[in-house]
Amino acid sequence: MSAPSHHLKARRLGIDTHSETVVFLHKDSPVCRSEGFASLNRIALAAGGRQTVATLYQVVSDILGPHEAGLSDATWEALGLREGDSISARHAPPVESLGMVRGRIFGHPLDETMLHEIVRDIVGGRYSAIEISAFVTACAARPLAADEVRAMTRAMVAVGERLVWDHPVIADKHSVGGLPGNRTTPIIVAICAALGLVMPKTSSRAITSPAGTADTMETLAPVMLDEKTMREVVEREGACIVWGGAVNLSPADDILIRIERALDIDSEGQLIASVLSKKIAAGATHLVLDMPVGPTAKVRDGAAAASLSGGLLKVAEAFGIKACVVPGDGDQPVGRGIGPALEARDVVAVLSGSRHAPMDLRARAILLAGALLELSGTAAPGQGSAMADAALTDGRAWAKFQRICEAQGGMRTPPTSGHRKTLLAAGDGVLTAVDNRRLARLAKLAGAPEDKAAGVEMHVRLGDRLEAGRTPLCTVHAEAVGELAYALGYADVNTEMFRIAQP
Amino acid sequence: MSAPSHHLKARRLGIDTHSETVVFLHKDSPVCRSEGFASLNRIALAAGGRQTVATLYQVVSDILGPHEAGLSDATWEALGLREGDSISARHAPPVESLGMVRGRIFGHPLDETMLHEIVRDIVGGRYSAIEISAFVTACAARPLAADEVRAMTRAMVAVGERLVWDHPVIADKHSVGGLPGNRTTPIIVAICAALGLVMPKTSSRAITSPAGTADTMETLAPVMLDEKTMREVVEREGACIVWGGAVNLSPADDILIRIERALDIDSEGQLIASVLSKKIAAGATHLVLDMPVGPTAKVRDGAAAASLSGGLLKVAEAFGIKACVVPGDGDQPVGRGIGPALEARDVVAVLSGSRHAPMDLRARAILLAGALLELSGTAAPGQGSAMADAALTDGRAWAKFQRICEAQGGMRTPPTSGHRKTLLAAGDGVLTAVDNRRLARLAKLAGAPEDKAAGVEMHVRLGDRLEAGRTPLCTVHAEAVGELAYALGYADVNTEMFRIAQP
Repeated sequence: MSAPSHHLKARRLGIDTHSETVVFLHKDSPVCRSEGFASLNRIALAAGGRQTVATLYQVVSDILGPHEAGLSDATWEALGLREGDSISARHAPPVESLGMVRGRIFGHPLDETMLHEIVRDIVGGRYSAIEISAFVTACAARPLAADEVRAMTRAMVAVGERLVWDHPVIADKHSVGGLPGNRTTPIIVAICAALGLVMPKTSSRAITSPAGTADTMETLAPVMLDEKTMREVVEREGACIVWGGAVNLSPADDILIRIERALDIDSEGQLIASVLSKKIAAGATHLVLDMPVGPTAKVRDGAAAASLSGGLLKVAEAFGIKACVVPGDGDQPVGRGIGPALEARDVVAVLSGSRHAPMDLRARAILLAGALLELSGTAAPGQGSAMADAALTDGRAWAKFQRICEAQGGMRTPPTSGHRKTLLAAGDGVLTAVDNRRLARLAKLAGAPEDKAAGVEMHVRLGDRLEAGRTPLCTVHAEAVGELAYALGYADVNTEMFRIAQP
Repeated sequence: MSAPSHHLKARRLGIDTHSETVVFLHKDSPVCRSEGFASLNRIALAAGGRQTVATLYQVVSDILGPHEAGLSDATWEALGLREGDSISARHAPPVESLGMVRGRIFGHPLDETMLHEIVRDIVGGRYSAIEISAFVTACAARPLAADEVRAMTRAMVAVGERLVWDHPVIADKHSVGGLPGNRTTPIIVAICAALGLVMPKTSSRAITSPAGTADTMETLAPVMLDEKTMREVVEREGACIVWGGAVNLSPADDILIRIERALDIDSEGQLIASVLSKKIAAGATHLVLDMPVGPTAKVRDGAAAASLSGGLLKVAEAFGIKACVVPGDGDQPVGRGIGPALEARDVVAVLSGSRHAPMDLRARAILLAGALLELSGTAAPGQGSAMADAALTDGRAWAKFQRICEAQGGMRTPPTSGHRKTLLAAGDGVLTAVDNRRLARLAKLAGAPEDKAAGVEMHVRLGDRLEAGRTPLCTVHAEAVGELAYALGYADVNTEMFRIAQP
């Protein structure tokens, strides 16, 4: 005996709930009465062969009629509806994999079959946001074991698209992040592609940081390319820098990342699965991992770096990827900008050889590009950095970058902020420490990464001499006056963002 | 410098989101543009001296004007608004205690100050549902330490009302639950009150079970009494059985319970803090804890029972409550009914001395009432059960119960279900095991506890001989045909709910 279903007229309510699927039904609708629906119930909706599960909010006002189903934009798109289409609603069947998540919370390990089921249900929209939150938290509080990480990676690859390339060497690069302004990727891609490596780079948007490479790159060229267009770009230029989400690589990661971002957490196991599922799905064969280490970077010390490196390399090996980790100084931001457009300016300055280019960003990009050139056999051991430096200095990388941007749809000029305010040193002395996390928070409160021009522009580096009330520390950029005020309020009570010692 | 705010006309959209505060704003509203609001941002709303934090959904259709703020019912009530009132909106300030939750996820313990701050922010509506989910999950995955449980209990008491009674002995009772149909409380209260104990009982609604005492009692009398009315009932009859939420005891618990219910988890530490914060707030001095133990009960074995009992007694002692734990057989449901109205029928049958009354429920109520009579010094050691039995047998408890119901607003007849179906034995043999969890799930799928008449009525007990296709096992009761079908679908694929062995 199967449960009955009921037909309703679909109405697009024009409500943006991000990826959360929501359905609004009138409390007096026949379906609510006969099915015994209550608010926050999970409802299975179906139309024209497609289905999804949505969270129900019941309505008692006249914004909806009793035979209508009001849908959030995410629900509307999941069902591919047109106005007035008929949809059916019934109780969502119990999600058995939630029992596995509960077990995991209390310490029962997850095997590959279970993780496949969990990840499939998450991508299928069968988990509510609080259920995903519980899964993410459980995997952080009770860290994923090595075999769980491998299984999770495999499951995440399995539910998405997988790119196959007609080249023996597909170069890739990833930064473990946590260091504001560390925007080396566009520079590395330009250098490596200029030297003949094939590097179809898919990047992500920010998780908990003020900008991801995709956010930054988007201020310089379109990044939301479909797979066909992306392939054309790579065919033509040997490389691209696009948003991975647009080609549906590891869609589970995109959903998990939204919750991780809202909670501002990411754990080692999920980080490994997230990074490598994307790389495997993108078809990478050679991978350089940038790992900044510092007290306020994502990786805080040598021990954490060793643990994370070991995990990443082991899982990469299990999937046949040749990888290496390049640790780096994570004591302070790289470059000057923190936020999409501000970082894009640094990238362009380095590539175009501007004399104002931030030298630390340039050096780091050369080091990482060099490692990738050596790993892939393009450069002889010990020769990678010199090769990369030459391609940057003589303009080959800059020319390649501009051609990539053109191929992706045309180069753009990053936007500038409408509201800004410069913070001055509070005391005399020498700058001895900066708090990367608070700086990132400051940039986010100012509106980054949603507001492309928002963020923080650094004016000082460790070791600089400061004069109270005179030396500019940084400038906060915002697109709205409310956000500027909000960020400055945070800066006011977080003066330890910059530590100044008497010389 | 403080952030600016913006004024909007409040509109009640009549959307039921339970306790979740939601605000809808048009994407083109001046406040969204100047403040840079995005969907899912947390927005601080204020009106007439009251404030709350709500999750923003942006709207692009004409269901809202650009100068209107559409509010869910929970938001409307939190602000105490009237139609057309003016409200202000700005970015919610960062919630500092979320940093402590993140730390807890990664293993940093929480001290009393931190837990106070977390609990205060949760009750203040400053946590989103996914943030509460992360907190609840973290405290389950990395169990709360003894001092964290005490601090959590104290914090939960501190943010709510606390009842003070003018009696030296205030009797109370709690069941750790997990055993369907174990509805002894109304019987125990009636017995103890008939024998002169003061027992102002505040009960909760179901967390993950098909019925809480408040859900069941509500089918027999009003339970949503305010403190004044509750005191009048206790003054008159020496006892009451009301819903604790209505007198705002431990409001944090009510919020945490909603998330725990949705996730279907509860951990030992949170269970202790939940139980005892309610008892402390209710002013209890003497407390009997009913703890059914069985493979499919909440407490699965002796080791778990010992750990939980130890934790409960230690924390009770720290707060000056004299407590004892009465373990019991948790192998099968108690009584016949599972679900509010079905359980209420069992309660009335026992109290009124019906010859159809379930004897196991009667015996258990006598045992627990006896323990409470002894603990409080009303009965001499070893005499409690006999004293309780006498008060039940001679009708004093029944008379007292009816008077309590009258005092609470009038006795009611529990509703009966409109749709039902009896399940028959699938094989010949002896019933050797029943799965309490699956039975509870079955009752919930049928609509309990939201639908008062819904649930499961048991017809067999362990050891009964069954005949395939003839012996009725249980009857599923539902208020809607959709839910009946839904529950029966579950029963179809979960035949191991009843284990039958060849004799």
